[in-house]
Amino acid sequence: MKAEIITIGDEILIGQIIDTNSAWIAEQFNLNGIEICRITTVRDKHDHIVEALKNAEQKMDLVILTGGLGPTKDDITKNTLCEYFNTKLVFHEATFEHIKNRFSKRNIDLNKLNRDQALVPESCTVLPNKTGTAPGMWFEKNNVIFVSLPGVPFEMKYLVEHEVIPRLQQNGKKIAIFHKTVLTQGIPESMLAEKIEDWETALPENIKLAYLPNPMSVRLRLSATGSSEIILQQQVETEIEKLQQIIPESIYGFDNETMAEVIGKLLKVSGKTLAVAESCTGGYISHLITSVPGSSAYYKGSVSAYSNQVKQNILGVNESSLIKYGAVSEVVAKEMALGVKKTLDTDFAVATTGIAGPEGGTEEKPVGTIWIAVAGKQKVFAKKFVFGNNRERNIIRSSQTAMQILRRVILKDL
Amino acid sequence: MKAEIITIGDEILIGQIIDTNSAWIAEQFNLNGIEICRITTVRDKHDHIVEALKNAEQKMDLVILTGGLGPTKDDITKNTLCEYFNTKLVFHEATFEHIKNRFSKRNIDLNKLNRDQALVPESCTVLPNKTGTAPGMWFEKNNVIFVSLPGVPFEMKYLVEHEVIPRLQQNGKKIAIFHKTVLTQGIPESMLAEKIEDWETALPENIKLAYLPNPMSVRLRLSATGSSEIILQQQVETEIEKLQQIIPESIYGFDNETMAEVIGKLLKVSGKTLAVAESCTGGYISHLITSVPGSSAYYKGSVSAYSNQVKQNILGVNESSLIKYGAVSEVVAKEMALGVKKTLDTDFAVATTGIAGPEGGTEEKPVGTIWIAVAGKQKVFAKKFVFGNNRERNIIRSSQTAMQILRRVILKDL
Repeated sequence: MKAEIITIGDEILIGQIIDTNSAWIAEQFNLNGIEICRITTVRDKHDHIVEALKNAEQKMDLVILTGGLGPTKDDITKNTLCEYFNTKLVFHEATFEHIKNRFSKRNIDLNKLNRDQALVPESCTVLPNKTGTAPGMWFEKNNVIFVSLPGVPFEMKYLVEHEVIPRLQQNGKKIAIFHKTVLTQGIPESMLAEKIEDWETALPENIKLAYLPNPMSVRLRLSATGSSEIILQQQVETEIEKLQQIIPESIYGFDNETMAEVIGKLLKVSGKTLAVAESCTGGYISHLITSVPGSSAYYKGSVSAYSNQVKQNILGVNESSLIKYGAVSEVVAKEMALGVKKTLDTDFAVATTGIAGPEGGTEEKPVGTIWIAVAGKQKVFAKKFVFGNNRERNIIRSSQTAMQILRRVILKDL
Repeated sequence: MKAEIITIGDEILIGQIIDTNSAWIAEQFNLNGIEICRITTVRDKHDHIVEALKNAEQKMDLVILTGGLGPTKDDITKNTLCEYFNTKLVFHEATFEHIKNRFSKRNIDLNKLNRDQALVPESCTVLPNKTGTAPGMWFEKNNVIFVSLPGVPFEMKYLVEHEVIPRLQQNGKKIAIFHKTVLTQGIPESMLAEKIEDWETALPENIKLAYLPNPMSVRLRLSATGSSEIILQQQVETEIEKLQQIIPESIYGFDNETMAEVIGKLLKVSGKTLAVAESCTGGYISHLITSVPGSSAYYKGSVSAYSNQVKQNILGVNESSLIKYGAVSEVVAKEMALGVKKTLDTDFAVATTGIAGPEGGTEEKPVGTIWIAVAGKQKVFAKKFVFGNNRERNIIRSSQTAMQILRRVILKDL
């Protein structure tokens, strides 16, 4: 099945935003055996949209449109779709009820723009959007499927996952394909490639390996194709078992799990609790931990101690340690972890202190120098890392590394 | 002058990489008065490239191709270009000398693939690439300019800045264009549209307005076209002044500023300090504030108080308030803000407490109920919001809303 993604939006064409939607859709569709042949971005204008639809209809089996929907944008896209599919806008009761409910929950009155969002082309199948007001719309014309989705990423993702892909599967447009992604942390990509070279070379021909590095981790995606999904799954699991023997410490999870979810599960199962003390990471570890639903069961809280005064007064870091070793030091990292563990009365605690940059480095402690400490039942561990000059990346890498060390301490119950 | 960007590369179509090149080119061209009408990504295949070239030639004055050049990729793209422009590959002496020099500096022997990079289509103008081995190529056909560039971002950027834009300017293909984006927070898109309808209708014909909503804010982009950039800028500034009188409270910044940067600037100028107490936002406000370089000058730290125990012990929230009103209440939000302000000894403090979801709601306090409090010099303010069911969005919206209220309190020095 050949597919095209058409993105409608001037903001992409003036370079104000990067089109991340298309990359996400392309990945999801590929995982489901649908080949994306072309991605096109066009302006919010009638003629431009029509031309893109015509070009797509000639070559594709499936066309995904994103963007151009929403209270202030609806007009052009919806009217253009009506014209193209030779239909007219009609009032869609269920969509209107849904919009009304969303607004009444927030105690906001509906205006005309909101009401107009319940107008949909008569010939389309409405895809209910639980995450927003603009519904998805599914059209079929000359054996080509056209799906129009809002451009807001989480609304678009919801509709692809819950409406579009299930419907395509029902249509039988799927071949047997099985993917599993192994999440690793702590080994740079090139070193990892060397370590697992023999394993990679010995992979069966129908299993392909892709390296997907990001600032959080290096992900290894295994994609197996064949005729039976159950057999493919067994095949992939067998290869992952072999991989686990080569890099046992580095694999922290699979597929879309986050490190914070993995840690959450470990704490929940063991009935243990966690606290966090952050200097250079400034609240990011706490944010990642609390992004997991239900985290209040094991997470008591954190102290972001940006000033030394807070490190002393709330975390109980010794003034003498700050003077003698500086805030970015093994001693202070350990005192922060022990301090927050004691103050918040938890089983485990993790602490970070470092120079995130871009300013503030010295010859001895350059930008990117980070101390991470983890306090467990009886022991406290600390390790120094030297990352790069990019503030955002340093915060992300420090947070992810701190959680990886925490994970090992929890696993071994140290 | 109407332009299209064509990106050649399978890695984008499987979602492995995000196409950041196109966004950069689009921004640069827009700044230089060249309108990008379409961005297309196609596979590394002869037929797909030819089709994209044909589609572009029909509608555009300028076509920028990126990708598909480089030692292991040259064959398809260069041969396809030769066929399309009815020419043949010839050996280009200057390019060969340049490649030889680059390799000899690095003490690497040339192989056949490297030598073949000096083969270029006879009819093109070669654009020397000082940053790599694959040169740019400039073609003209039926009054349309085609420029083929390597896909490596810094090589592409070098060629656009040093070769492509200067040549286009010589060709006199430049018009003046000026963009400015107004950042608003606190009014939903549909309500904003209603409020500013008259202003929008009265905009001069050469100024276009675009709504760019995201979970953080609704951005309004004004794009003016004409013959003098200085006049356009004045024109846009005049319209923004009028807008500021209509929604004075809601505009927090311009262009690429973040709310945390705006708050940072206000605090820095006034020499004031900030502390944060977070329950439902779990560290996200602290993360946003500390993402700004130099934030340690005004930011002392935060307490993420996920458990009531932490709210009491560290923030000094009264047990009786927690029992009588519950953790998600006006009284507790205010006590949290006042508590963290006192404990961390700052001029301002902001606090959040709410039910981020997806679980934990009650009839009285459904998921999405959030109390935000801001403590200033003398007063403490609190306001209730009811957002939706999505945990991630609730965290983002609560954080952004809290910072917006904080901004107003700092501005008015309350």
